[in-house]
Formats: sequence, structure tokens, C-alpha cells
Amino acid sequence: MTILVVGSVAYDDVATPTVQRERLLGGSATYFSCAAGFFAPARLVAVVGEDFEEEHFELLRRRNVDLEGLEVAEGKTFTYSCRYEADMNVRTTLSTELNVFADFHPRLPESYRDSDLVFLANIHPELQLEVLEQTHEPRLVACDTMNLWIETAFDSLRRLLRDVDVLMVNDEEAKMMTGERHLPRAARRVLEWGPSRLVVKRGEYGVVMFSGDGVFAAPAYPLEEIFDPTGAGDAFAGGFIGSLARQGSLDDAAFRLSVVYGSTLASFAVEDFSLNRLSRLTPGEIRERVCGFRDISTFHDPDLE
Amino acid sequence: MTILVVGSVAYDDVATPTVQRERLLGGSATYFSCAAGFFAPARLVAVVGEDFEEEHFELLRRRNVDLEGLEVAEGKTFTYSCRYEADMNVRTTLSTELNVFADFHPRLPESYRDSDLVFLANIHPELQLEVLEQTHEPRLVACDTMNLWIETAFDSLRRLLRDVDVLMVNDEEAKMMTGERHLPRAARRVLEWGPSRLVVKRGEYGVVMFSGDGVFAAPAYPLEEIFDPTGAGDAFAGGFIGSLARQGSLDDAAFRLSVVYGSTLASFAVEDFSLNRLSRLTPGEIRERVCGFRDISTFHDPDLE
Repeated sequence: MTILVVGSVAYDDVATPTVQRERLLGGSATYFSCAAGFFAPARLVAVVGEDFEEEHFELLRRRNVDLEGLEVAEGKTFTYSCRYEADMNVRTTLSTELNVFADFHPRLPESYRDSDLVFLANIHPELQLEVLEQTHEPRLVACDTMNLWIETAFDSLRRLLRDVDVLMVNDEEAKMMTGERHLPRAARRVLEWGPSRLVVKRGEYGVVMFSGDGVFAAPAYPLEEIFDPTGAGDAFAGGFIGSLARQGSLDDAAFRLSVVYGSTLASFAVEDFSLNRLSRLTPGEIRERVCGFRDISTFHDPDLE
Repeated sequence: MTILVVGSVAYDDVATPTVQRERLLGGSATYFSCAAGFFAPARLVAVVGEDFEEEHFELLRRRNVDLEGLEVAEGKTFTYSCRYEADMNVRTTLSTELNVFADFHPRLPESYRDSDLVFLANIHPELQLEVLEQTHEPRLVACDTMNLWIETAFDSLRRLLRDVDVLMVNDEEAKMMTGERHLPRAARRVLEWGPSRLVVKRGEYGVVMFSGDGVFAAPAYPLEEIFDPTGAGDAFAGGFIGSLARQGSLDDAAFRLSVVYGSTLASFAVEDFSLNRLSRLTPGEIRERVCGFRDISTFHDPDLE
């Protein structure tokens, strides 16, 4: 199955409690497509400025990303600056310079319109809707969103969700969006709005997926050190959609395994700044960590066998 | 294997955002022993006042609790009052009347001293140490503690931990105790102090167990409604130790399955106030929910089979 992603490609300034780095390759669509590329080529629709560096085009190509839909516009690439607290779950946005992203309207090349699996990364719901208008009956539409759109564009978001199969958000967003403080109830609400699956990313607590088939929960991989949490959610989404593409199936078993592959890609993404870890990752390492996920979540009850 | 628990038996006043209840049967040792009783009789060492009601002695007996070590002292039973916020993870203690618990020093009946599995519920570490002095080479010692003892009796706690096999605490306590904000690092520290296993209770995020055998993570059971979180951690411990007793084994597989049984008992405990749900629970319901835990955490990768 073919994969399409629409989202941001950015340069990030990131400060963690111990290290500060500038002009790192970042952006939701970047993390997504590099993670998905381990499974199937990802078709990327995004915009960069004239300052986007050749080595970064090169990195994307090397990671199996199809760049036909990557527009180069006059001006500078979107720049994002943030700081992580000692508790790395807490991120403060320091600045957002939209630059070429300010007037961005996604335009799908003709060859992208028949994509099977579409991921709408976290951009304005109206732009996400514009993408769907240009697609021809995808087999699956997944999307992310954020507190800003829940607060300022909720009607558009609700309209979008009618055509979305899988909503992927974090704990807080799922609760905020539904006004339910208890996740299983929030999930039931979301599943009434359109999506048939809700995938909730919970950082160090792992991922939980709700659907009519029941609940599946995967723990986070217990890393001793987290260098940079930026992009973890998008790397998750890339591994998740990539794994679905490789399996060529959309049944519950395929979704469960895809949650594990998504968690695996996310766990690698945070082991270094920017795309550094993903750019040197190997399929063997991915497989080994998926085995690790099985080890940490398996138990046997002789009475149930 | 035989089970011994030392802790509190109390009357609780509990207020949730929707309901307020007074003089509910509560206490760490109460929840523990009623949960453990589904697997093996629990020997209870605690103290109550003359006001402790006959129906509550009766409930404990019916739930397989050995009451030889339950002292009835002059005065009133320990009383605890708390309020839960709309986010039920947040509990405020309103009052603590120690009453007969103020001068409590655990005294083990002779027949209890050879117990195989000892659980030291959350009481002052010096009292926990007094219990260990009265035991004859238990096969396993597990203990709980709380922020109060970490702040005011850390030296005693560290001394205790040298003789403890399994430390069972919540996320915040594990981090506070070690000064590490990242749980896998906190776990490594605790395992250097004496315990061979650290079991971390994370409420709605489940449980994670660290040991030299690796990591095991179990999700929380996705309940739509939580009536009263009081006692969940102690019901977990009771199911955990009870399951070890029934399996008669202390290998890693036995511990993993025991985490699931502990999580199962905890998930029932919160479905009603006080011991109400545990008092009407059946072995068939326990088994069914353990199957449910397997369903929510199982995935298959054809490439790894």
C-alpha cells in the first residue's frame, strides 16, 4: 500500500536541560516520512524555503522519501524553537516563525492522489480538509491535531473527523477535545464522531488504542536516557502507517502490530537530536526492539492456555 | 505458600466529586488481605478499637483472612478522611485520627512467624523493621511506603530496604526516593539498595516491574467508571502476593503473572466504595478479567514467530 503524508518540514532550535542545538532538521512530515520509509516509500507534501540545505534533501531521499510533492518556495523555511524542562514531558514553545509555511496550501501531484494510506500531520484542520479533497478514495485516513486547533478551529476539526479513520492524539488532547477526564469515556465519544480508531500517545506511559474491536495497550520502551522528545509522536505515526503498508492489511491484528512498530520508531527517534538516530537506524535494530517490546509485555497463565 | 500482612485497618470517610460516604471499612491491610484471600489465607497483623463492628470481622473471615493477629485495643479505630478531585488521580487528605494506631507495635502470633510471603503495608519503616525481626526467614519480603516516610524517615527506610525483596510504590514515590526523574534510572538506583524487584504502580497507566530479569509492563484495565480509587494499591499488592502464593514459585514468569492478578484485583476494588466490590467478587470474574488483560496486551508479529 502507498503512503502519503502532509505536514511541516522545519528547522528547529531545541534546548534540553543539558544541551542546546540550533537549526536542526525537524517538522512533523519529516519525522513521519523518515520513519515510514523503513517500510514503504512515503510521498511527502510540504513546503520549504530556498535556505533548505542540500544535505537535508539528500537525507530524505536516502530514507526512502518521495520528494515530488515537496515545494520549494521563495523565502525561509518554517522555524520552530522550544525548550524542555527537567521533566522532559513539559515543552515550552519559545518562538514559531512560519515563513514559507504562512501561505502554504497543500497541492498533491497527480501521481499522489491515489495513495492508499493518508496521514494528515498536525496542521490547520482546514488544510487537512483541502488534502482530502484532492485524494481519490484512500483506504485509510489518519490524522493528528493539537490544543491550538481544538481551541480555535473545533468546528473544522469535527467536520474533518467525519472523514478520518484513525485519530492519533496525546492524552491531554483526547480529554480536552471531548471534555471527558477519563480516557475510556473520551474514546467512546471520539468513536461517535467518525473515526473507527483512537490512538492515544502517552509518552513514557506508552500508547493505547481504542476501537470497536476493543482496547490494545503497548508500554513505552524503557529507555534509560531521552535526549530529545521532539518528533516522537510523528515518528510513531510513521512507524504505525508504514507497518500497515508493509502488512497490506487493515484488520485489528495489523493495527496492534503497527502500534508496536510505531512505538519502536518513536523510541529510536528520542535517542538523539533531530533525525540523527533515524538516519543511521537499521532494519535489524528495529526488529530487535520489536522483540524487546514483546518481552516486556508478555505473560503466561497456565490456567488460561 | 503462607501470607502475612502488617498494616492498617481503618474507617474511612471518602468524598468523590459526586458522592460522599462515611465510616467505610478501609485500611491498607484490609484491602490487601481481602484481595489475597482469593488465592490463599492471609494472616493479618493490625489493631482496631472497641468500636470495630462485628459485620466487619465477619467480612474479613468470609474473605479468607486469618484474624489471630488482629488486636482489639481500648479506644477507637484509626480513622482516615480524604477527598478526590475531578481528576481522581489527585487525593487530598482531610484528616487522620490515629486513635488505637498511635501506640501500635506489631506483635506476631507464634504461628505467624514462619510465614513465607510477608507484605509490609505502608506504615512507619521502624514498625516495618520490627515486623521483620519477628519473622523466621521468609521466602519473600515486599513492602510499600509513602512520601511522608521518604521525607521524615529516609534512613530507616534505606535500612529496611536492605532486607526487602520487592519494593512496591507509585511513580512519584520512586522518583522522589531516588532523586531521578526518569523511571528506568530510578529503578536502577532502587535495585542497588537491596530489593531485587521494583514494582511501580501508575494508576490509569498500569504497572511496570523492574528486575535483573528485565522489565515487564501491564496496562491498567480500561474501566469506563472509577467509583473510589481508595485501596487500589493495596488490592494490587494482595492480588500480587496471593498469586505468588498460589503459584508456589518466585521465578520471573510467576512475578509477571502476579502483576496481572494484582492489576485485576485493583481494577475490581475501584468499581465500588470500600470493600464492597471485593466482598461480592467471584473467582470466575477474576479469571475472566485476567483473560481481558491478555486481550488488551497481546500482539503477533508473523516475522518473529
